[in-house]
Amino acid sequence: MSDIVEPRITGINKSIIDSYQNLGGINHITGPNLPSRRGVIAILETFESLIFPGFQAEEKLEDDLISYTIGAKTRRLVRELTVEISRSLEYEVRSEGRESVPGTCRKEAEKIALNLLELIPSLRERAMRDVEAAYTGDPAAKSRDEVILSYPGLEAVACYRVAHELYIRDVPLIPRMMSEHVHKNTGIDIHPGAQIDDGFFIDHATGVVVGETSVIGKNVKLYQGVTIGALSVAKELADKKRHPTIEDNVTIYAGATILGGKTVIGKGSVIGGNVWITSSVPAFSVVYNRPADYRVKNRYAEGNSADHWSI
Amino acid sequence: MSDIVEPRITGINKSIIDSYQNLGGINHITGPNLPSRRGVIAILETFESLIFPGFQAEEKLEDDLISYTIGAKTRRLVRELTVEISRSLEYEVRSEGRESVPGTCRKEAEKIALNLLELIPSLRERAMRDVEAAYTGDPAAKSRDEVILSYPGLEAVACYRVAHELYIRDVPLIPRMMSEHVHKNTGIDIHPGAQIDDGFFIDHATGVVVGETSVIGKNVKLYQGVTIGALSVAKELADKKRHPTIEDNVTIYAGATILGGKTVIGKGSVIGGNVWITSSVPAFSVVYNRPADYRVKNRYAEGNSADHWSI
Amino acid sequence: MSDIVEPRITGINKSIIDSYQNLGGINHITGPNLPSRRGVIAILETFESLIFPGFQAEEKLEDDLISYTIGAKTRRLVRELTVEISRSLEYEVRSEGRESVPGTCRKEAEKIALNLLELIPSLRERAMRDVEAAYTGDPAAKSRDEVILSYPGLEAVACYRVAHELYIRDVPLIPRMMSEHVHKNTGIDIHPGAQIDDGFFIDHATGVVVGETSVIGKNVKLYQGVTIGALSVAKELADKKRHPTIEDNVTIYAGATILGGKTVIGKGSVIGGNVWITSSVPAFSVVYNRPADYRVKNRYAEGNSADHWSI
Repeated sequence: MSDIVEPRITGINKSIIDSYQNLGGINHITGPNLPSRRGVIAILETFESLIFPGFQAEEKLEDDLISYTIGAKTRRLVRELTVEISRSLEYEVRSEGRESVPGTCRKEAEKIALNLLELIPSLRERAMRDVEAAYTGDPAAKSRDEVILSYPGLEAVACYRVAHELYIRDVPLIPRMMSEHVHKNTGIDIHPGAQIDDGFFIDHATGVVVGETSVIGKNVKLYQGVTIGALSVAKELADKKRHPTIEDNVTIYAGATILGGKTVIGKGSVIGGNVWITSSVPAFSVVYNRPADYRVKNRYAEGNSADHWSI
Repeated sequence: MSDIVEPRITGINKSIIDSYQNLGGINHITGPNLPSRRGVIAILETFESLIFPGFQAEEKLEDDLISYTIGAKTRRLVRELTVEISRSLEYEVRSEGRESVPGTCRKEAEKIALNLLELIPSLRERAMRDVEAAYTGDPAAKSRDEVILSYPGLEAVACYRVAHELYIRDVPLIPRMMSEHVHKNTGIDIHPGAQIDDGFFIDHATGVVVGETSVIGKNVKLYQGVTIGALSVAKELADKKRHPTIEDNVTIYAGATILGGKTVIGKGSVIGGNVWITSSVPAFSVVYNRPADYRVKNRYAEGNSADHWSI
Repeated sequence: MSDIVEPRITGINKSIIDSYQNLGGINHITGPNLPSRRGVIAILETFESLIFPGFQAEEKLEDDLISYTIGAKTRRLVRELTVEISRSLEYEVRSEGRESVPGTCRKEAEKIALNLLELIPSLRERAMRDVEAAYTGDPAAKSRDEVILSYPGLEAVACYRVAHELYIRDVPLIPRMMSEHVHKNTGIDIHPGAQIDDGFFIDHATGVVVGETSVIGKNVKLYQGVTIGALSVAKELADKKRHPTIEDNVTIYAGATILGGKTVIGKGSVIGGNVWITSSVPAFSVVYNRPADYRVKNRYAEGNSADHWSI
């Protein structure tokens, strides 16, 4: 670095520190530690490797060693979960102005961590039903193993089911950190508050949004770009059901948008691509936009119009 | 960890191991090793660095050292490809119930690996035509180098071309693992089975889906959110052409959806944004939705309606 | 590796090196080093950690140590910025055929680096207004901390503001490398050339595209899949305003597309989901597609039509 840097950098440092002291709002300098992004991601990855064992080829699980491998993983998972949940509970205590009793948050965190681990066998059963839904629902799927190895929808749903268990136990921050990690990885944004039953399959994944108070039945299938969303985003609606109910065996094709807390898509319905729905439809409906709703002209008869539209 | 952990974790471990033994379906505990995700990603990255040499600034390729650098990379690539292809071939042998002859899969894998490496010069020629299509097709592109350094569409197409070569050689699992890695990175989901000719450009990338049996001609340009998809997803259609044919010099703007194995978009056509097409259009067509198909009202004349729509 | 590899790999290496020498166009073998992707990402991450201090739980910033922590970070940032900017300026000098005067690019790079660091306090003020817009704009947001920890829109906007400062100082390559890194992470593609005022909130993120010459006012809110784009992509328009102007306090719901350099969305307007706009609308407009523009039939009355649409 040249001579001009050092004098200026001293001033820069001072102005940054001043900004931390004066500005407030986005500082966590002396407050409690927040949950660690890296820690939360590590937890999700351990859950995944316990739910889908042997799918990381780095590890070869031999029969006679399996109890050691599992034992090491579950103990690490309890420890890591306890640390991060504890941070998030302490954060809540302090941000609500309550006094933190030493050890209380940690004890509560450990309890929640153990509860979550006890759910792993049932999470595996649910994952198997999600795999089955994907395999039977997609003609391009060559095998169930290919689904587990390469379908982003499967990863997103498995992680959602973990995050949801933390959400319903009122753990702050971590469930949304988990769902956002999955969102970055897969393009699927499922709020951990959503209630989603078995056999849920999302194909192609990118751009799917499922809102916080959505209720989704068994064997529902979504394609890319589907939104299950709210009609209004007024802050005072935070505690209301703002998102639709999708009943059993509904298929929703690419780009469809279904909005509103009172909207119910009746069981067995098929929602066509790009359809925009803000009210209920009865069971066994087929909903679709008017076909061929476009114009076709010859390009050269049209002059330059062929160069229009973009970005 | 507190005293309560150890007694409960023993039971948890047992229930997880029981679940592995009883549940089946998503286990690969004692079966053959599947291809490694990490290994597959490393292979893609080496291909990329051989196709676009010098674009990772960490390495400075000097003229006199280049043969050593290339030699080290290609040898590593042969070895890694052989390992992963071999795993995928062995997986197939066993899952089809055939008996595995020692060394056969490995020998076949090595042959395919060498074939792929021999394609690198022609993959580079194709990549150059893809770069050219991107540079001339986007007024925001400042240089061809900027395209290589920062256009996700270019990365997705280069990786698709590698995955496609494995797909047509009947290598299981790996092609889809590659396409899914790229999908996560770029938001572009091109099935490795698609047939895509030279000069293919995808701008803005996010949400593009190109199905397994699509056929795409020369100099085709897609924008974000375009789907080249199937009209029906019945599992028995797995071996049929389910996805459209897009002829040479077609441009498809953002959010358009083109569906069906018999749908042909004639050469030189322009498909407007958000258009939904399920039947063929002749060459040199301009296809667009009716313009201004919306209503405009004054917000305050409308009461609260301004707060509607979401999520 | 078996015996067949070595003879063939020698030929492969030769053909690759020949291709580098003959093909041109995508080589940077003996030319100047381009900016490093890894370096550019590290710079963005350091900016983020200075703008949102304490949100990486790995580091606990104590009051008495803070000046050392900040001092180490800012010095590293100056050094890394200087290296990468210097590379990009040298690249430009050579690719324009000008002669490189030793040290000139480095000196200029250092100057720009220091300018950027001096902006950090004001970038923090702007980030706080972006956080506030997200928190008040989303009923699902439980706290401002949750917004910072888990909202991809916030990360994308903070990084855009850094990239934009490099863009307006005519630094080549790096701004687009930054925006593309964020695009990969969040699904949000904001060109660094766009001009975006305070309080900008993007919810759910995936698929948002904001073009190079867009102008966006204060307190604008976008949802997933919104495109602020160009009507034409002719290369000769590179220096023209090709993208819309969005005035203050406009909300644009999911999937809406607004195109054209002369298109102005008047202040306080609400643009409904999926609306497609290519001309201006006055202030305080509510713009929406005709409601219920679809058909509903009973699935079984329809024969097999329920199995249509996909991909």
